[in-house]
Amino acid sequence: MKQTFHTLILFLAASFSANAQRPPAISSPDVHPDHSITFRYFSRTAQQVMLNGEFLQAPVPLVKDTSGIWSVTVPPVQPDIYPYSFMVDSVSLADPNNTYIFANERFKRSIVDIPGDIPLVHSMQNVPHGAIHYRYYQSSTLGSTRQLLVYTPPGFKNTEKRKYPVLYLIHGGSDTEETWTKVGHANFIADNLIAQGKAVPMIIVMPYGNVRPKPMPDFTKDVINDIIPFIENNYPVVKKAASRAVAGFSVGGGQTLNIGLTNTDKFGYICSYAPYTATEEFKTNFTNWSPDAEKLNKAVKLFTISVGTEDFLYESVQKNMAMFKEKNIKVKPYIVDGGHTWMNCKKFLATSLQELFK
Amino acid sequence: MKQTFHTLILFLAASFSANAQRPPAISSPDVHPDHSITFRYFSRTAQQVMLNGEFLQAPVPLVKDTSGIWSVTVPPVQPDIYPYSFMVDSVSLADPNNTYIFANERFKRSIVDIPGDIPLVHSMQNVPHGAIHYRYYQSSTLGSTRQLLVYTPPGFKNTEKRKYPVLYLIHGGSDTEETWTKVGHANFIADNLIAQGKAVPMIIVMPYGNVRPKPMPDFTKDVINDIIPFIENNYPVVKKAASRAVAGFSVGGGQTLNIGLTNTDKFGYICSYAPYTATEEFKTNFTNWSPDAEKLNKAVKLFTISVGTEDFLYESVQKNMAMFKEKNIKVKPYIVDGGHTWMNCKKFLATSLQELFK
Repeated sequence: MKQTFHTLILFLAASFSANAQRPPAISSPDVHPDHSITFRYFSRTAQQVMLNGEFLQAPVPLVKDTSGIWSVTVPPVQPDIYPYSFMVDSVSLADPNNTYIFANERFKRSIVDIPGDIPLVHSMQNVPHGAIHYRYYQSSTLGSTRQLLVYTPPGFKNTEKRKYPVLYLIHGGSDTEETWTKVGHANFIADNLIAQGKAVPMIIVMPYGNVRPKPMPDFTKDVINDIIPFIENNYPVVKKAASRAVAGFSVGGGQTLNIGLTNTDKFGYICSYAPYTATEEFKTNFTNWSPDAEKLNKAVKLFTISVGTEDFLYESVQKNMAMFKEKNIKVKPYIVDGGHTWMNCKKFLATSLQELFK
Repeated sequence: MKQTFHTLILFLAASFSANAQRPPAISSPDVHPDHSITFRYFSRTAQQVMLNGEFLQAPVPLVKDTSGIWSVTVPPVQPDIYPYSFMVDSVSLADPNNTYIFANERFKRSIVDIPGDIPLVHSMQNVPHGAIHYRYYQSSTLGSTRQLLVYTPPGFKNTEKRKYPVLYLIHGGSDTEETWTKVGHANFIADNLIAQGKAVPMIIVMPYGNVRPKPMPDFTKDVINDIIPFIENNYPVVKKAASRAVAGFSVGGGQTLNIGLTNTDKFGYICSYAPYTATEEFKTNFTNWSPDAEKLNKAVKLFTISVGTEDFLYESVQKNMAMFKEKNIKVKPYIVDGGHTWMNCKKFLATSLQELFK
């Protein structure tokens, strides 16, 4: 999808110009073999164009040529998928020439994918591919029809007698049900790890967690009362806690703790990534929590909390881990470099997928 | 998905402000009960903010309040789904507060959905819903792995002995394989018409048509040699021309003519929407075309060309229809008001779905 349909577009541009002012087709971003990247933006009238990217320490300026094309080439970047945006004078916007958009409700950023010399775990590789199903379920909790995404592993046909385990995977605070696939490449991570025999074939359910009016408790109800039954009625899955996992990032990491630890009869695996826990629901659930630790540690095969050392939630995560340890709950920390980013999310998920249902 | 996660976001905004300048959460667009719409944009520094929308004759200005929130309320708009964008000083951009983006490679526009008092054919209604599968196929023609979307009708489980007919549905010139679902609501149109008994349950395949280096002939090869075999190996479908249809819009409408009329052994239904035909492939295929009209008219159960009277391609479409008629090819015109728009695309598809495979 990345490359535009240049020749034809140039044809069409003239015809369309009556009803929309379309700038010329330019290529941005161009990732070079040495992992440097050129970004381009067209404007004859802008005074300043800056590049903001999660691979940069600070914004860098683009420079205009005589035709109105602004550009900058940044030095080689560590292969990964990064969000970026342009700041044109005072306006922050996604790269108009890049189809890949960060799926989010609050900002519009683009994504640049710098492939590794050896393919990365999140890259589309030459292995059998699963599918992503966009499905609609009726939420009795919320009184509406809602969309969710379902990853089915390679070769899945829904005809087999084989039953699969299920991971329920939740996005971050202003993300959408598409963020784990569009930005996190959860499907390619699963494809690659399954092909290598490092993960067991599983179904991954990616719901939309930003519910109203009470985001936290209502979403927990939606998962337990609506989403799990929908999946179990429509997919061949094992209906046991030992074959159910819940994982999530940021706000979804907090939801993961709330959903998982208060429903250990339903979830045998709980993987929380950089959890945001400054919520009423977390306070209600855990302030005076006195679980039967022995029973909980037996019910839950794996309880992990992952975080980057530069994450703005790092201190909060450390406090929560201390709280769980104080209550004799076994929690496995996974601490990496970096911040509150989707670069880290992909690492967290790739690590979890190798530990689930084994 | 539309509404943002206000309370939580306000919490998070402070925490995140270190690494990204996020404006306050504002609601845009707000569609009111009388079908008027309020659009909002936040900027303390912009000199001018304009709204461009396909429901407007000309751009309208937004007005700034003392807090830096620009807004405008437009009078009641005919219920439909429309693309729009903001022009902030010289910068055209999608609405930062609207999750619904027009899936396209060349521009970033948002979408506003004005529901009808009686639900429209493209609106999600309380009927059984099909699924959309995101699949990956290996293209021998193009030497790469490509994504396509597959709509499966309500109740589809791939376990039945029942075999379905297939519509291959192609997007416009700079659109993507997601445009027919994200902008065209092809899945909801099919759900609604199937529920009403007006369309037969079918599979709808939405490939990505912008291929390189030779967009037109290479895509035809990709459809015939790679996409059809992939679908027929992976879905329970009838493998006969009478159960295959091809349809497409604009550039995809031209591709539809090229693919369909040169492969009448494979397609019993050809539905071309506002076709763009100023291509080498069209010239090659049709300049000196002398088909056996009687045979073709018998092989093709339905050949339609749809266009709006204000479409910039209207004259070209009329010429092509005359050319087909001159060769005694039966072509059924479907002429509506309006231009080269996705509002018309939805009408064209809804009309075709009621005529296919009957």
